[in-house]
Amino acid sequence: MSVINIQEKFNLFSDYWSPKKIGELNEQQILLAKIKGEFVFHKHDNEDELFMVQKGVLEIHLRDKIITINEGEFYIVPKGVEHKPVAKEEVFILLFEPLTTKHTGDIVANITVEAYESI
Amino acid sequence: MSVINIQEKFNLFSDYWSPKKIGELNEQQILLAKIKGEFVFHKHDNEDELFMVQKGVLEIHLRDKIITINEGEFYIVPKGVEHKPVAKEEVFILLFEPLTTKHTGDIVANITVEAYESI
Repeated sequence: MSVINIQEKFNLFSDYWSPKKIGELNEQQILLAKIKGEFVFHKHDNEDELFMVQKGVLEIHLRDKIITINEGEFYIVPKGVEHKPVAKEEVFILLFEPLTTKHTGDIVANITVEAYESI
Repeated sequence: MSVINIQEKFNLFSDYWSPKKIGELNEQQILLAKIKGEFVFHKHDNEDELFMVQKGVLEIHLRDKIITINEGEFYIVPKGVEHKPVAKEEVFILLFEPLTTKHTGDIVANITVEAYESI
């Protein structure tokens, strides 16, 4: 494989809520996403999911509280925990999760992406 | 768990070649390290290893070429591939690898750390 420049990968797409795969190792994948607005509440029964903010401010709404993640910070949503990403303004995120992780977890919504494009 | 600020975690230590654990998910760990100078050639027979540069310029020497990784870039060393990290000046890196990954892989050197401190 080659060296991956994260910002250059972000420059390759502009659609929201559609993660792009930029790396894979040990049955895990590294995804980039641009998001704006509200996602849907969902959970992943068997996978923890890491959200690292590259630009902007990400809120992760849990059922009992709101987690705020700023640029240069990350948060791990444990398996089984319902969560809803919310971006009041455009946010760029890096995700780290198992290859088996479904986009909207235990639900299917209009927003659901079945297979991620590699860029 | 709480939100992790990567720069704040870097501020907590100054020793070189001694990775600190800042997160764990799906049997994988997220480590931070400050490095300067040359490591030793080693390999991990069963684990891919991701090097993401947070500050400075990292060289990964392979047996047949040198990979240069700048700030905001990452590189995945595939399992079984001999590699030697080299930092001509101080470099801050984030590592992503399975919990089972040994510091210096298939060898033991003076530099080897057996268990990583969590910070």
